[in-house]
Amino acid sequence: MATKEKDNRVVLLISCPEKPGIISIVSNFLLEHHANIVHFDQHTTDPHSGRFFMRIEFDLRDFEEAYEKLEQDLYGKAAEHSMEWQLSSTKNRKKMAIFVSKMDHCLLELIWRWKSKELPVDIPFVISNHANLADEVESYGIPFYHIPLTHETKEEAEQKAFKLMEGKVDFIVLARYMQILSPNFIAKYPNQIINIHHSFLPAFVGANPYVRAFNRGVKLIGATAHYVTNDLDEGPIIQQDVLRVNHRYSAEDLKIAGRHVERTVLADAVAWHVEDRVLVHGNKTIVFE
Amino acid sequence: MATKEKDNRVVLLISCPEKPGIISIVSNFLLEHHANIVHFDQHTTDPHSGRFFMRIEFDLRDFEEAYEKLEQDLYGKAAEHSMEWQLSSTKNRKKMAIFVSKMDHCLLELIWRWKSKELPVDIPFVISNHANLADEVESYGIPFYHIPLTHETKEEAEQKAFKLMEGKVDFIVLARYMQILSPNFIAKYPNQIINIHHSFLPAFVGANPYVRAFNRGVKLIGATAHYVTNDLDEGPIIQQDVLRVNHRYSAEDLKIAGRHVERTVLADAVAWHVEDRVLVHGNKTIVFE
Amino acid sequence: MATKEKDNRVVLLISCPEKPGIISIVSNFLLEHHANIVHFDQHTTDPHSGRFFMRIEFDLRDFEEAYEKLEQDLYGKAAEHSMEWQLSSTKNRKKMAIFVSKMDHCLLELIWRWKSKELPVDIPFVISNHANLADEVESYGIPFYHIPLTHETKEEAEQKAFKLMEGKVDFIVLARYMQILSPNFIAKYPNQIINIHHSFLPAFVGANPYVRAFNRGVKLIGATAHYVTNDLDEGPIIQQDVLRVNHRYSAEDLKIAGRHVERTVLADAVAWHVEDRVLVHGNKTIVFE
Amino acid sequence: MATKEKDNRVVLLISCPEKPGIISIVSNFLLEHHANIVHFDQHTTDPHSGRFFMRIEFDLRDFEEAYEKLEQDLYGKAAEHSMEWQLSSTKNRKKMAIFVSKMDHCLLELIWRWKSKELPVDIPFVISNHANLADEVESYGIPFYHIPLTHETKEEAEQKAFKLMEGKVDFIVLARYMQILSPNFIAKYPNQIINIHHSFLPAFVGANPYVRAFNRGVKLIGATAHYVTNDLDEGPIIQQDVLRVNHRYSAEDLKIAGRHVERTVLADAVAWHVEDRVLVHGNKTIVFE
Repeated sequence: MATKEKDNRVVLLISCPEKPGIISIVSNFLLEHHANIVHFDQHTTDPHSGRFFMRIEFDLRDFEEAYEKLEQDLYGKAAEHSMEWQLSSTKNRKKMAIFVSKMDHCLLELIWRWKSKELPVDIPFVISNHANLADEVESYGIPFYHIPLTHETKEEAEQKAFKLMEGKVDFIVLARYMQILSPNFIAKYPNQIINIHHSFLPAFVGANPYVRAFNRGVKLIGATAHYVTNDLDEGPIIQQDVLRVNHRYSAEDLKIAGRHVERTVLADAVAWHVEDRVLVHGNKTIVFE
Repeated sequence: MATKEKDNRVVLLISCPEKPGIISIVSNFLLEHHANIVHFDQHTTDPHSGRFFMRIEFDLRDFEEAYEKLEQDLYGKAAEHSMEWQLSSTKNRKKMAIFVSKMDHCLLELIWRWKSKELPVDIPFVISNHANLADEVESYGIPFYHIPLTHETKEEAEQKAFKLMEGKVDFIVLARYMQILSPNFIAKYPNQIINIHHSFLPAFVGANPYVRAFNRGVKLIGATAHYVTNDLDEGPIIQQDVLRVNHRYSAEDLKIAGRHVERTVLADAVAWHVEDRVLVHGNKTIVFE
Repeated sequence: MATKEKDNRVVLLISCPEKPGIISIVSNFLLEHHANIVHFDQHTTDPHSGRFFMRIEFDLRDFEEAYEKLEQDLYGKAAEHSMEWQLSSTKNRKKMAIFVSKMDHCLLELIWRWKSKELPVDIPFVISNHANLADEVESYGIPFYHIPLTHETKEEAEQKAFKLMEGKVDFIVLARYMQILSPNFIAKYPNQIINIHHSFLPAFVGANPYVRAFNRGVKLIGATAHYVTNDLDEGPIIQQDVLRVNHRYSAEDLKIAGRHVERTVLADAVAWHVEDRVLVHGNKTIVFE
Repeated sequence: MATKEKDNRVVLLISCPEKPGIISIVSNFLLEHHANIVHFDQHTTDPHSGRFFMRIEFDLRDFEEAYEKLEQDLYGKAAEHSMEWQLSSTKNRKKMAIFVSKMDHCLLELIWRWKSKELPVDIPFVISNHANLADEVESYGIPFYHIPLTHETKEEAEQKAFKLMEGKVDFIVLARYMQILSPNFIAKYPNQIINIHHSFLPAFVGANPYVRAFNRGVKLIGATAHYVTNDLDEGPIIQQDVLRVNHRYSAEDLKIAGRHVERTVLADAVAWHVEDRVLVHGNKTIVFE
């Protein structure tokens, strides 16, 4: 669900071992810090011995002062209850780098949503291993870096990218970037790299999913947005959707039709990531839509 | 979402005016009563001055004793904070009367879900203004009452139904019951009568929606489950869905196709009602799916 | 698309090598036989050198006489143009045997659609390797045969089934029949055995798809109806659909939810097969919905 | 279904009174003109006394010469059988004018599909009653005309538009153009003006559909693309789709979410119109997808 931007809205994500009273503990803590809770979502993998996940969206009275105090006090509270946590505020817009190859449909969908203020991020730049989209990207006032790449120059190319990104990027979207990132790269951005795969994973893992979907004669084609891990196409799935097709579709037609489901699925996943709605647990996600 | 039955699961529904700390108040109260929260959902119509809605699903240690104590204490807590509330337990299965006319598709869908234990209710009986479904209903061991009805005998017929229902029925499903209930009847079961309308309301309010959908040339047909109020087809909507159709469909074909979306939509709405997932606010519903 | 039954409607299916004028040839042939075409669908895999598929639905004046004459003349016409063809009439309802194991949801959906005249077939009997559904099936006046089966007695069991089916069955539906048919069995009913697989094939080929879907954290679960071939779960796909799920679903919940998409997908596939809307080409289907 | 452009593909649309042999007549005629049929779709409103609709897509040998001859001969053939017809070729791209007000989402979707060659049209210009989108449109090399408009100057404004369009425009898309066209304007482009209405018509006919959807508490919101007639929001529906929403959506959120279904629905309708897949019959459409 996409909504208009809210000022000073704060989001607290927590995960911790299940224990009785955890909601009391957290809600009391927030009340003490004068937080006015707007949305509260939780999930437990097992109410007796599982892991507990929470997303709390709230407003703060006297934002500046209160936010800092809250953050400080969270360290203690978290230690006490073995919590992992993340605090963020709409005041600090996330910085999203986009990686792309030759195809523009996912890229332009993200840019359009950013431009229409539906996606409250900053886009410091777009990086591509091809030059063809430079003009288009720059026409939106977004810097475009062409970093060509061969098997041999991959490490060097990634180093260039790192330099550009240093301190300027919170997360990365692979908007049909047709290169495999190195483990070194992935390790720097754990659960912060979103990829769009052009199939309904785990069907058609790997290359050329549309051709293989055509050959198998499926009646639905799909797309999957997931966090990138070292296991190709095996990272935690954030969003999936499908499109009905029929015998009239050639492999080429599937590809063309598939572009639309790809851009929707990726845009959903990115929006949820930006709004801190996605928590990763093992190889799965909890999405508080 | 349909799930297998859980033993001794308790659901507490609360609505009250917004005020800071309401989640703390409720979660502390539940903690004191040794409740282990499994699901917690909330919604506010406005975080500053709106109305606050909560659904909390939890397990109780020492169920029998704890449940009674909790219920008693809720009166005081609720008075203190102007809360409306409802407490229920899966131990006490809801009793669902089904009203039907001649068509069996919605009726059989409900019976099938009941029989497969997907719908954890008791069905004390089925009432119909026609006799044609008696054998079918009785073959499942469910009593069937034929209460014929004309414009003149409506009041009398409703009185018969009341006698049958007295103390035996928690809520009523109109599974394609083609009679309009009297205000008197509706007043006895506020937000406890679920109807399925065979159109995507508010399109085609009233009679013969499939014929009118055909004449208008729509490309989707739908169904709407809602609580019955005195304003025909205007009660709070619980669930809606649609089905794609095309120029090949006659009005009769639309009707046949529509049966499938009707039964799914009604079954969803009934399942959510049974699991206490639906709260009514004015003429709208909050559904904690 | 399901429609009410039509009397004396005839369906001619043709496949042949592409050649110019093929529609002229067939439509002229039908005109000479006083056929009044109601629906005409065609598909070509390649307009220049592919294979051509046609489905023509028509009414015949003086049905009895005309149908026989048409059938006779088709042999010559087909030989002339290397056509494979199939002629059928709604006068001769198809005979559908249902194979089932313990779960009843797909079975009952088919029976319900048959009973409501939405599925214009005869059901000579149901065969199961378990006894639990006997009463239910027989309550509809449909014979039920319990043919238990172990790895050792499989051949014997299939022989029993053959005896029952001989001359009495046009096609077979595996409505969650959890046994693998022998190549010998499959060879007797080429493209006449429809199976429902409880996943979105080719994802989760094989056993326990819901558990594997749960473990992979997919956001959609699906079902696939296909013709059975000797390659397990690899036969031509007739229909597929999906259902949105989320992190709240346990593996058991996925299974329960999945039942609904299974029965819809299977019912669609069976309806299309019954109405001669499905043509097989290699390992794929052409479905003239 | 969107597909890549084909060279020299011809589409013939025919509607005429039902009569036996109509498919023979047309297919023989096309065979004589050396047409190689690629797709053949037909529909009849009643096989005995209805109206018959056909769409035939074919390739021509010796295109230039053959096309002209075919067109000439069609006049005679059509007169003989009371046919209305339309012949078009992918060689002659349709010219699409876009009218827009302040919101850009539908406009940009069309431009993006045009730019990516998914929509094989020419866009001679965009006309708006506001100036805010001028730069954006011109950045794609498309002329932009700002024609402001008040109640008093409407006639004058339409005259300006007519001058621009004269001989340069085949059809018009109202991509969220928030003005009502005069009967005079509409009469000049019968069934050639496509509008997108931001509701699931006939629900919420008229203004502010998202606010009214919010107030009614619907669980799905929709969009409808239709041909413009003098009856506001009552013209023949080409395409509709819906999006699931819930109690968390404000009226503003519905509006934001609705943009995505609007652009998809409009893009589908425009694609079908461009590929000559839509035939109008009374106040309804036949869409040969």
